[in-house]
Amino acid sequence: MAKLNFDAILGVLLIFIPISIVMELLHANSILLFVSAALAIIPLAGFMGKATEELSKQVGAGIGGLLNATFGNATELIIAIFALQAGLFEVVKASLTGGIIGNMLLITGCSMFFGGLNREKQTFNSRVQGVNSTMLALAAVGLIMPALVSHIFDFNTVETLSLGISAILLITYVCSLVFSLRTHRHLYDCEGEECKPQWPKSKAILVLLATTIIIALESELLVGAVEPVSQSLGLTELFIGVIVVAIIGNAAEHSTAIIMAMKNNMDLSLGIAMGSSTQIALLIAPVLVFISWLWGNPMSLVFNEFEVVAVIAAVIIANMISADGESNWLEGAQLIALYAMMAAVFFLIR
Amino acid sequence: MAKLNFDAILGVLLIFIPISIVMELLHANSILLFVSAALAIIPLAGFMGKATEELSKQVGAGIGGLLNATFGNATELIIAIFALQAGLFEVVKASLTGGIIGNMLLITGCSMFFGGLNREKQTFNSRVQGVNSTMLALAAVGLIMPALVSHIFDFNTVETLSLGISAILLITYVCSLVFSLRTHRHLYDCEGEECKPQWPKSKAILVLLATTIIIALESELLVGAVEPVSQSLGLTELFIGVIVVAIIGNAAEHSTAIIMAMKNNMDLSLGIAMGSSTQIALLIAPVLVFISWLWGNPMSLVFNEFEVVAVIAAVIIANMISADGESNWLEGAQLIALYAMMAAVFFLIR
Amino acid sequence: MAKLNFDAILGVLLIFIPISIVMELLHANSILLFVSAALAIIPLAGFMGKATEELSKQVGAGIGGLLNATFGNATELIIAIFALQAGLFEVVKASLTGGIIGNMLLITGCSMFFGGLNREKQTFNSRVQGVNSTMLALAAVGLIMPALVSHIFDFNTVETLSLGISAILLITYVCSLVFSLRTHRHLYDCEGEECKPQWPKSKAILVLLATTIIIALESELLVGAVEPVSQSLGLTELFIGVIVVAIIGNAAEHSTAIIMAMKNNMDLSLGIAMGSSTQIALLIAPVLVFISWLWGNPMSLVFNEFEVVAVIAAVIIANMISADGESNWLEGAQLIALYAMMAAVFFLIR
Repeated sequence: MAKLNFDAILGVLLIFIPISIVMELLHANSILLFVSAALAIIPLAGFMGKATEELSKQVGAGIGGLLNATFGNATELIIAIFALQAGLFEVVKASLTGGIIGNMLLITGCSMFFGGLNREKQTFNSRVQGVNSTMLALAAVGLIMPALVSHIFDFNTVETLSLGISAILLITYVCSLVFSLRTHRHLYDCEGEECKPQWPKSKAILVLLATTIIIALESELLVGAVEPVSQSLGLTELFIGVIVVAIIGNAAEHSTAIIMAMKNNMDLSLGIAMGSSTQIALLIAPVLVFISWLWGNPMSLVFNEFEVVAVIAAVIIANMISADGESNWLEGAQLIALYAMMAAVFFLIR
Repeated sequence: MAKLNFDAILGVLLIFIPISIVMELLHANSILLFVSAALAIIPLAGFMGKATEELSKQVGAGIGGLLNATFGNATELIIAIFALQAGLFEVVKASLTGGIIGNMLLITGCSMFFGGLNREKQTFNSRVQGVNSTMLALAAVGLIMPALVSHIFDFNTVETLSLGISAILLITYVCSLVFSLRTHRHLYDCEGEECKPQWPKSKAILVLLATTIIIALESELLVGAVEPVSQSLGLTELFIGVIVVAIIGNAAEHSTAIIMAMKNNMDLSLGIAMGSSTQIALLIAPVLVFISWLWGNPMSLVFNEFEVVAVIAAVIIANMISADGESNWLEGAQLIALYAMMAAVFFLIR
Repeated sequence: MAKLNFDAILGVLLIFIPISIVMELLHANSILLFVSAALAIIPLAGFMGKATEELSKQVGAGIGGLLNATFGNATELIIAIFALQAGLFEVVKASLTGGIIGNMLLITGCSMFFGGLNREKQTFNSRVQGVNSTMLALAAVGLIMPALVSHIFDFNTVETLSLGISAILLITYVCSLVFSLRTHRHLYDCEGEECKPQWPKSKAILVLLATTIIIALESELLVGAVEPVSQSLGLTELFIGVIVVAIIGNAAEHSTAIIMAMKNNMDLSLGIAMGSSTQIALLIAPVLVFISWLWGNPMSLVFNEFEVVAVIAAVIIANMISADGESNWLEGAQLIALYAMMAAVFFLIR
């Protein structure tokens, strides 16, 4: 029932695709353009996620895993690539940070909170979450190192280090795919209603292609409006990147995670949220470093001090909470509170 | 038996109430005044704690929880308010840090050490301690953020951030009350001898009122002596705040925690020590920020670098040790060693 | 079979003892001297370890424990003492850091990786590893504190603090010996083939004496070549200390840990790797501080920023991975990846 309403809402939001295009053509107010492009991306990301999921079920674990790796955070990747092209390095890095802490704290927190209401506790496979937690801790160390040495290294050395760390993160990500798709596949087995295909293969492929193209278009509009919007609203590009862009790129996915938690399927819910964080840190971030390097205008992995602390704190606390394989509403509230504190700082930083 | 002796010692210390007042009236040496006020506070805090406990047993969980929240760390709060009024912001913040690490490391350490002697291991409810640990980790993040951004923000922004974080910490504290008093009450059920009322209600109320008033008086004497004492002994206000004031305010409570551990009631013992840390971080600290703000001379939450590291280290290591729900004397010794290292630094800092 | 080959390889490497001596006498190229001294130390350290183990089995737990404490990391200690004498403080501290992270990340990682191939999972006693983890966390805090305050303290105060922290670390180490040799001996019981003596006592003593003397000689050659080697290869002394010296001093031990993991004896394997880290942090480091102080040229415990972060990250992540008493190849790969990232930074730092 909730699912039905949810799909219907997504459908209605599709109207913002033509609206945003008209706005762009009319050179409308940049805030209206930003908002309409954002609202258009939400359902597109949702349908892309759905199509990826449906296709994955029908092509076997191996290709399914690759599909998920490619399209799982495709919206974020596309937005980031346009921001990269526009030279908005701070926004790109901020959206990476925001994606990681948003998934680990806000989404996991909401899932545990709403799922935990009226329940004594919810349980999940702590082993699978442990793999994700350690991956994120590893990525956090990789992401803080360039920042740590940036003041004693020259720019080229930091660049070299960023590339080296990106390579190590990518290799580790590939290892985790081998783990989840081959050697320890059974830990990730999907069972029950959610695992049966609901769309025919052709529909899934078509939706995947269509959404990819339109998301690319909308992302260009969105990124083009970041600077004027930040100026007219008095928000920093950092805040827009960390909080706004990160939430838009994942909105549909987020709703799914929370709905799954309310249905007491915590494994699926945490899998979405934590898996998404892991993918951003170990796949998207390194890929962006390599792309920017190929383009000849390399983006380093030097995050600012505050982003570093936010990611480390998120990793440690999310690990504390998920280590025992149980959650309750208070743990959810704690994660949300942590996110709120971080959002407050990002809002105030100029 | 141990309990009897313990009450007797507390009773004897009451003699320092008149002694300290006479000292003040005679303008006696400030060290003697400081010591006698401190010795007077110890039994007062003890009887206030006892009265709070007795009253809580007889008024139902809801009001009992509020009573505990209000009077549980009332001594520290009263001392801090007088120090705040005297403008001794560093002492106030140092006593907060000292209260948190003192409870988490020294008291928990002594409890695990003395309780663990001659025992293979002691067990406790790791779930309840997990709630406390996460609360503290959350508070630690909140408490370090203003320090982290203090050099890039102007004073007003840091002040705003401190108020925002205080509000979030208070809300989280209220959530934890709802958790322990309503939705997950059964986890905290008190069973056995310790849970039956031993004092009539009227006695408890009377003791509560009397001790509150006298503690307020003695705290004023104590705080007034901090500056001259620090000068004549060559100790910093930081050291007096972190180590001395923090220990005095909790001395009676601390003894109770250790005695309970020796009786192998680790749940009660850790509940006192960890619960007290949690209250300081999520209730006392935010309340002081709001009080100072209402007084027009706002105290920010900018702790110094070393306090920040001390709190983070305490949170992480205490969590490592308590995560498995078991303790032994070596774990106790480890926590004490950690406290000793921190005390050495606070002693040497000028 | 693997064991046989392994001993044979060690035996062959002994040929580098005369080679290195001839090189020194002929004033040969310093790189060749460095390499041959290093290759000579590997089998010597291996036989010293074997002799210590054999002797320990035959003298009872008490003296056996002391033997292990004394000779367990004797090679590292001897190398460090010569480096101390040569005034190479940075190399000494770097080899301590390198020894700690090398054991925790590279060796533990290789053990979990190679042991975990073709196995669903391997299990180990999480309680024993928990003691080691907490010890290391404690030591990490002790080792970062002087660095943290070095810029606000004068040199003498930092020196005093280093001595105080060294004393606390040593006391804690003694506590851990009491724990493992007396009060909780049964947790460390050795059972099976590996625990029966294979060498007569006299052989063990003779080998112990001979290797100690020759290692001392070779260490002097090795340390003497550090400076010219670092200059001619363009490597920093830091990198040589953290990565090269730390690996040489432990090469034989490391192989044993990995072989044990492949035989699915994870308790022994992790015991070697984690126990070695613990000994370096709580025994070797403090002893070096005291020795340098007695020599009148005190070495402080001020590690550089990057060493501090490396040790903390290693402690936290190794703890995450070993907390559940289970390992698999992916966890091994994660630890190796972490080590690779750190080695990259140490390689780039000038």
